[in-house]
Parts: sequence; structure tokens; C-alpha cells
Amino acid sequence: MDSLLLSRRDLDFLLHDWLDVTALTRHPRYADHDRDTFDAVMDLSEAIATRHFAPHNKKNDAEEPRFDGERVHVIPEVGQALRVFAEAGLTGAAMDYEVGGQQLPTVVANACMSWFQAANVGTAAYPFLTIGNADLLLAHGSKEQVDTYVRPMVEGRFFGTMCLSEPQAGSSLADITTRAVPQDDGTYRITGTKMWISGGDHELSENIVHLVLARIPGGPAGVKGISLFIVPKFLVAPDGSPGERNDVVPAGLNHKMGYRGTTNALLNFGEGRHTPGGAPGAVGFLVGEAHHGLAYMFHMMNEARIGVGLGATALGYTGYLHALDYARTRPQGRPLTGRDANAPQVPIIEHADVRRMLLAQKSYVEGALALSLYCSRLLDEERTAEQESGRARARLLLDVLTPIAKSWPSQWCLAANDLAIQVHGGYGYTREYNVEQFYRDNRLNAIHEGTHGIQGLDLLGRKVVTNGGAGLSLLLETISATVARATASGGEAAELAGSLERATARAGRTTAGLWSTGDPATALANASVYLEAVGHVVLAWIWLEQFLALKDGTDDFHEGKRQAARYFFRVELPRTGPQFDLLDSLDRTAADSRPEWF
Amino acid sequence: MDSLLLSRRDLDFLLHDWLDVTALTRHPRYADHDRDTFDAVMDLSEAIATRHFAPHNKKNDAEEPRFDGERVHVIPEVGQALRVFAEAGLTGAAMDYEVGGQQLPTVVANACMSWFQAANVGTAAYPFLTIGNADLLLAHGSKEQVDTYVRPMVEGRFFGTMCLSEPQAGSSLADITTRAVPQDDGTYRITGTKMWISGGDHELSENIVHLVLARIPGGPAGVKGISLFIVPKFLVAPDGSPGERNDVVPAGLNHKMGYRGTTNALLNFGEGRHTPGGAPGAVGFLVGEAHHGLAYMFHMMNEARIGVGLGATALGYTGYLHALDYARTRPQGRPLTGRDANAPQVPIIEHADVRRMLLAQKSYVEGALALSLYCSRLLDEERTAEQESGRARARLLLDVLTPIAKSWPSQWCLAANDLAIQVHGGYGYTREYNVEQFYRDNRLNAIHEGTHGIQGLDLLGRKVVTNGGAGLSLLLETISATVARATASGGEAAELAGSLERATARAGRTTAGLWSTGDPATALANASVYLEAVGHVVLAWIWLEQFLALKDGTDDFHEGKRQAARYFFRVELPRTGPQFDLLDSLDRTAADSRPEWF
Repeated sequence: MDSLLLSRRDLDFLLHDWLDVTALTRHPRYADHDRDTFDAVMDLSEAIATRHFAPHNKKNDAEEPRFDGERVHVIPEVGQALRVFAEAGLTGAAMDYEVGGQQLPTVVANACMSWFQAANVGTAAYPFLTIGNADLLLAHGSKEQVDTYVRPMVEGRFFGTMCLSEPQAGSSLADITTRAVPQDDGTYRITGTKMWISGGDHELSENIVHLVLARIPGGPAGVKGISLFIVPKFLVAPDGSPGERNDVVPAGLNHKMGYRGTTNALLNFGEGRHTPGGAPGAVGFLVGEAHHGLAYMFHMMNEARIGVGLGATALGYTGYLHALDYARTRPQGRPLTGRDANAPQVPIIEHADVRRMLLAQKSYVEGALALSLYCSRLLDEERTAEQESGRARARLLLDVLTPIAKSWPSQWCLAANDLAIQVHGGYGYTREYNVEQFYRDNRLNAIHEGTHGIQGLDLLGRKVVTNGGAGLSLLLETISATVARATASGGEAAELAGSLERATARAGRTTAGLWSTGDPATALANASVYLEAVGHVVLAWIWLEQFLALKDGTDDFHEGKRQAARYFFRVELPRTGPQFDLLDSLDRTAADSRPEWF
Repeated sequence: MDSLLLSRRDLDFLLHDWLDVTALTRHPRYADHDRDTFDAVMDLSEAIATRHFAPHNKKNDAEEPRFDGERVHVIPEVGQALRVFAEAGLTGAAMDYEVGGQQLPTVVANACMSWFQAANVGTAAYPFLTIGNADLLLAHGSKEQVDTYVRPMVEGRFFGTMCLSEPQAGSSLADITTRAVPQDDGTYRITGTKMWISGGDHELSENIVHLVLARIPGGPAGVKGISLFIVPKFLVAPDGSPGERNDVVPAGLNHKMGYRGTTNALLNFGEGRHTPGGAPGAVGFLVGEAHHGLAYMFHMMNEARIGVGLGATALGYTGYLHALDYARTRPQGRPLTGRDANAPQVPIIEHADVRRMLLAQKSYVEGALALSLYCSRLLDEERTAEQESGRARARLLLDVLTPIAKSWPSQWCLAANDLAIQVHGGYGYTREYNVEQFYRDNRLNAIHEGTHGIQGLDLLGRKVVTNGGAGLSLLLETISATVARATASGGEAAELAGSLERATARAGRTTAGLWSTGDPATALANASVYLEAVGHVVLAWIWLEQFLALKDGTDDFHEGKRQAARYFFRVELPRTGPQFDLLDSLDRTAADSRPEWF
């Protein structure tokens, strides 16, 4: 039976037929790899995800982590799965050989991760966060910090978290108040409360490495006075083993609608439960320079945002495959024409409306997967392009695509999950089936790692305007290059290219128009609508790219991809017309609504 | 503090300023009523919903009904709330005095019901279903059936269900196989399995009156051979009390994503657990004539669909009020202009994107409430209009509006719940807050009582084409009358009227174009898109109606309504452009997708 997690055929098409990932092996960093090693790690990921992650996905949801006031209890299957994951070397899949990694391209490592996100996003979140944490330390930590924390993370002995939010400071990181007081020995003592900490406490690993944003007293106000600290749950002994208990303790767990398998804690730092070294406060170790914490965190956050988009994609994708499987096997009703009550019922995939719901899902999830992998490929490009200009180009394109890569799958792969429920009818609404959990799990993705609204402000207020709009120009040029290739190839591709060209030109004009007013509040009043409209234009481009990569293939896979591309151009891209109209009108209907009118 | 369930001010505006409900009291049926009695029953409903329904809404969700293999256990608060509801006379709010009812207009009774749906949709479902059941028996049952079953339902002693679906027959009712074998005494013996039976088993009432669709052997195949039976859980003794146990037993409960407070059972009829009267089979009593069961059921189903839309509306509305309350009190971030990290944070309602999300919710939920009450008012019109032509007009308009009144709130008030979560950020995703439950509860409404796809086929395939398109013509004329009034009033109303006129004309042309092909499969290929587009046009009309009813009021309530109307016209109505374009192109992208391409 085909997997209900992801389509390996689609992944192979995207990685190889489209993104030519094997070309990366020409770079010395990936010289040991070839198509075979890529295939092998994909095989391994699918196998582990299928055998060790998927089977406890429902149990993870039904028996969520529990806090007894002292310890956090997680079902044993999670720890077992994560041991297999780490032993397979997957935590360090993209990391340097030097720290125990496999030095795979990020695009391959992310494709591998998507199997786990599709199988069990709650369990997969632990290595996801650990990898982000390790990557940050590899980029900004000292050698000693890498040796002390990253190596055990790669070995699967330590897990990592990111501690940004506080009860009064969620989207507004300028308002964090956690304090870090310098000590004579060069360490800091941390006190404060952090909130929404995924993986914040558990006993799945020997130690938990918290990366904590805090203020050193006397520093600047706002985001410029934020520093980053390592605060391990257990202070690491000279032999590398977890030693004395640090003063970071859970104050409670959040009980979520979905994503329940991942513990999510309110953490108190330095509340006095423990006194490491006999003194008050949690012991913290400064990462990099003081007051640069937010920049370091955002380095990682940007990669994490692509990973969030990929996770949303994986949930949408597995939901689609479940709906497809159901639609092929569930008999119900008869064709509209020639209804004969005595004829047997047909599988519901025969009904036009069910096909519509399946094709919409296909266009969302395959489009989102392609976008996620394209951005992952850009991360590799940024690292390995021969010319500095190539690396800068990749970074610039990534900057402008990241808010879309995070938010578009979070919105549209949730819409796919909604349709997957609808295809199942009443069954889809029950916990006896799988799709309602995907829908609940996926709803988180428009919230964490920067809400939808924050992504809109990031795109329109920052990414398309900084450097004189260089990011947007590059994106539009990149799309134009695809349009030119498609136009040259003629036929249907040229037709799609015409639509895309018009939509792209429109996006450029609308952006210029918004910023021509000199009034940022008006320009940004509908930043979320802008995010959605430009997102759809980008996805149309991604679909045209896929269409071209199909070449003249004619098997069912190729025909299906083409049909999904057509669907996207005929049904989805036109949605942007009214959105651009609204933006062009500099609409202030919402902005001008007075609070007392509601 | 203002209620977080619904806005009484809005309800009063809709019922009195707009729908002039008091005018109904000129009809003899409602002669005992006046504005004061309407206000009193609304006050009572709000009070009972607030005190007895809302407090256990979360518990209803967390501690869902449990089946021990024999009995179904429901938390005690449900029974207590329902006793208060029945004792207040609310079950029979709209029923005749003769059966113990209050003979209130349906529009008032539905407005009352919406308080309970907003407070606790899981508990409110029991009387909702009971009222539908009783209404059906009042319309089609014998006097003896009314005396035996309806009176105890009005008293709150018996509850009712509707048993349509079977495991192999959900949307396809033609395929039901439950058998009803006639007996010498005029009763029937029923055997079969019914599925998705809300309120299907519990011990909340003395008895449960199941209305069951079944086939009498030898009858026609398909929907023309379906009859309707009363199958009580306990056979009613001559003195009216529940007597011998009938052979209808739960085989299990469904575990739903939301709406958990309502038991939802798989029911076996005549499996042999009980042998009433010493014979096998569940004892059933034919309602009306044999083979007319589906028509009777649909009589009730049509009212139930308006009620489902109202329930979706109530969930959207309470979610909106929760989001508004949160947005007014949660400080986070600072205005875009003049960011001073030392200035205090502002309530999030100050942010344009939050206002956008609130205004969108307001436009959805207030629009949906207006539509639901408009349709409820038509039910009264159908019953009490002086001229037969007035009654026929009301029926025809109801026919065409019902699929929209069911599906539009189910789609857009769910979208409102999604936005209510987003306004809350991470908090909204937790079960410590209320909005995630509304979102889960509301997701059912696009599925039950005819899925979204079924409503689309009903509207485009039946309602707008039967009788030479008389229903659609009437709808368009009715909208045109509003357009004419708005145009005559000039100013902003005339401007909105212009947009609505164009959209309405477009809806008419698109409908004609779809049916001009002579190819029903192509016409209906995008019936769901048609449903959504026409739904938005209808809602724009409903918003223009509200706009006009505001007259020259200038307080915050009036200004807020106007702003929501503007939002609907500027942001929502334009969505229909690409939808009508797609329909006009007779698009077959989904329909032509071969199953093997997916």
C-alpha cells in the first residue's frame, strides 16, 4: 500500500527532477554524498516515521503530557521513538561531521524531517526544536558551548528549547523582563518566567538545554537590550554528564487544542526551588555578545519558520492522502446522470465535488511542499554557492520568501485539513479517524513562531522595502525568469506564464502604490491581505516551476501534477484580484473602526 | 458586564427595528403577545442560558458522554439545565397552546434558542432535536401520536431524535435498508442500524422518541420507498407513562472533535436484546402514509437546517464577543508610529490587524444572525400571511434561501471562530480559554443535516431551477426591491446598492449560463462554488437591509453596524467576482480529473 504520510514519488520529483539536489554534491561539503545516500536516508526516515512515530500519534493526542506538580509525564512511546531517531543519526543530519553530523544538504534533511512531522508532529517537535537550538549554538556559540551542549544534542542525550515569550510579552518581545545578572565567574543568574515553552520540561532526555532571552540590568530598553543565554536544566559536570540541578522549573503545562504530544510549559527561572552552587537564580551562560540576543535568535527563527511551514505542509499532505484513500474506498451515492436506485453505489471520488476537494488539497499541499523545499534549497545555496553574489542572492530571496514559507502552508494546508474532514463526512469529525487531529494540530502553525499578522508586517513592512526593495525586485526577477522559460516553451506553459506575469506585475505595482503614500499606518493596514495575495502569486510561480519540471512526462503522476497546476491557476490565483484591488484602494475600513464601535 | 454569549442590543435591533416582529401580533395566532412578552421570554432565555447552560459548557466537552456497554452516562449538569429549560416552557415556545406551547412566533423562539446554542451547544442540542421531532409530529402525526408523544416532549419528560443515516447510507438516503414489517395490530417491527444519532441514547428523559426512516418490504426502491416511524425507547403505557422497553439499543457512541456534550450513537433496532410484547423487532408506529417518509422528514429538515445555521451563528457570535473582550483587555505591543519602548503597551484592539479580524468576525456573525432571523420570520410569514399568495411567496423564498441559511453560517462563522482564536494568539489555542472549543464545535455544522456539497447541489440543482426558476426570480426581485429603496435613500446606501445590483445581476446571468448548456454534470461541477458566491450576494443584501434599518442613528452601535456593512461590501462581496468568472467558464478542471491522477 502507498504511504498515507507523504508521497515519495512527489518528494523525489521535487528533489531531483526539479531542484536537482544531487548537483549540490559537487560542493566539497557534500562530496561524500550522492543520489544513493540521499535515497538511503529518505528510506530510513520513511521507515522510522512509519514504524516508530505514526503508531503512537493518536495516543500522543489522547494521553497528553501530565504535570504532577513536580515532574512531567509523557507516554513511553515518545522516548522510544526519539531514541531510534537519534540513533539513526537524524538529529545531526545537516550538521558538520565535526560535531557528529552527517553533513547532508538542508533540503534533504528537511525532506527527511517532513516524514516525522507527517507521522507524528507532537513527537517530531522535540528533535525539531533541538536541531534549531543546536544550529544556533553552532552559528553563535563558543567552541566550549558547542562541545558541552551541541554534541550531546546530536547524540540524542540532550534536548533543546527556545525561551522567548513571557506572560506579558508574546508578539512584543521588546517587553520581556527576565533578568540576567552577571556574576564574578563570568556566568549569569537568571530570574523570570517564560511561557509557551515547547519541550520545556520532560524526562525524555538526560538534560534540557534552554536558550533564553533575558536582559542584563543597565542595558538598553526594548529589543536592543536583549541577550541570549544557555540555561541547562542540569549544570553540565566537567565530564560532560548532567550534574547539579539548575533552578529552572515548570510551573504548569498548557493544555492545547492540538499538538498535544509536545509538552508546553510555563517555566520559572530562579524561583528558589533549587540553589545551584548554593546561590539564588538559575545559572546561565551568555551566548555571543551581550545585547545581540535577538539577532542570534532570529537567525535560528528564520530557519525555524521554514520548518514550521514544512510541518504545516506535512500535516496537510498526510490529511490529503487520508482523504484520497477514503474517497477511493467509500461507496456513497450514484452519478448525477442516470441515477438508478438499484445500481451499486460508487466510490465518492466519482463525485465532482469530492474531486474538487481533493484537487484543492493536492494543489495546496504539493505547492506548499515545493515551496518549503525550494526555500530549504536556498539555505544550502546560501552556504555553498561558489560566488559571494550567489550566496547574497540566496539570502535576499530567503528573506523575502520566509514569511510566505511560514504563513502560506499554515493557512492553506489547514484549509486542506478542513477539506480532508469534509471528504470524510461525519466520520472525519470523529476521533476514530485521523483527519480531525491533523486539523487541530495544524491550527497551531498560524500562531507560533510569529503569528500570521506578524508575518504580514514582516513581509510588507520590512522584507519588501529594506535595501530599496531589493528583496522584492529579486523575487519578481526570479519569477520573470520562470515566466520567460515557460513562454519560450510555448503551449499550455506559456498560457500559465501569461497569467503569472500579470499577477506578478500587479504585485509589484501594488507594493509601490502602498508605499507611495508616505503613511506607514495606511500602507500596513491590510498587511495580512498583502501577505495572502503575494503568497498566492508566489505559489502560482512554484506551480509553474513544477509544471515545467514535468517536461513531457505523461504518466498519471505527471497528469495529476499538471491538473493541480491548472487548478491553482484557474481557481486560486484569481482570488488575488480583489485582494490587490483592496490594497490599491488603500482601504482603511478596519483601521478606522473605533474600538467603541465593536 | 455585557454578555459574552450574544448581543441583546443586536437581537433587539434585528427583531424590532428591522424585522418588525411585533407586527406579527396583529395575527390572531399571536394576539396574546406584544413587545413585552417577547422581551420577557428573551430575558428569561438569556438568564437561563447564562446561569444553567454556560457554566458546564467546558465540562460537557472535557467529560463527554460515556457508554459502559449498557448505559450512557452524561454529566448531571446537562439534565439539570434541561429541566430548567423545559420548566420555563421553552420547548413549546413556538407550539400551539393546545399542546402546551406558548404560541410565540418562530422568529422569537429561534432568537431565544440562539442564547442556548451560544452558551452550550452540546446541551442545547437535546431540546433542539426534540422540538424538530415534535414539530414533525404536529405536522404529520395523528392526534393520538401528538397526545402520546408531543405533549410529554413539550413538558420536557420525553426527548426526541431523528434517525436517518445508516453505515452505508449517509448523504445517500436512497440506500437505507432498515426494514419495517407490518403486524396484524397495525404496528410495525423495525430492524436495522442507524448511525450518527444525536441524543440517540441517554437517561436525561423518561423516554426517547425516535423518528426512524425505514422500508416496508415490497415498496419501491430508492427514496420513494421510505416510510417514517415512531420508535420509542419505552413503549408508552395507556396512562401515558413509559412502559415496556422497546428493542432499540445503543451499540456505541461516536467520539467527536467537538459538540461532545451531545451523545451521538450507533443504534441497533431489533437486534434481540429486548422482545417487546414477546416478539422480535423494535415496535414502530407509522407516521402519516407509507412511502412518504422522506417528504415528512424533509419538512422538518428544512426548518432544522435554518436551526443549524443559527447554531453556527451563535457559536461564531460568542467567539467574536470573547475575542472582542480579549482584544480590549490584553496589552501587547505599541502603535506602528512613534514606537517608544518605555511607553506602556496598548490593548491589542489598537492594532489594525486585530481590528481587521474583529471587523471580519462582526460582519460574519451579525450578517449570519440577520439571515437566520430573516428566514425564521419567513416561517412565520408562511404560517400567518393573510393572502395565500403571501404564504406561497414566503415558502418559495424559504426554499431558495434554506441551503444558504444552513451553509453560509456554517462556513463563515467557523471562519469567525478561527479568527477569534487568532486574536487570542497562543492563549486561544489552549483549552484554558473558550474559543478553541467553539471552533471545534462549529466544525460539525458544515457536515450534519446535509453537507456543504449537498447544499450546493440542492441550491443549484434544485432550488434555482424548479418551477422555471421561480425561486431564484423571487429572490432577485426581493433583492432588487431593497436596492430600489437604498437607491432612493441616496448617499452611501445608494452606493452600496449599486454594488449589490451588479452582483445580483451577475448571479442571475451566471445561473442562466450554467443551465444553458443542457449538461447537468457540467452545470453542477462547481455547485459548491455557486453556493458560496450566491451566499455572499445574499449576505450583502442582508447587510444592506441592516444598513437601511439603522436609519439616521448615530450611536456606537449604529456606527459599528455601518462599518461592518462597509467591510462586507469592500472586502467580502468582491470575492464573488472570481467565483462567478469560474462558473461562467463552465470550468471542469476538478470534474475532469481522473481518479488515478490523484
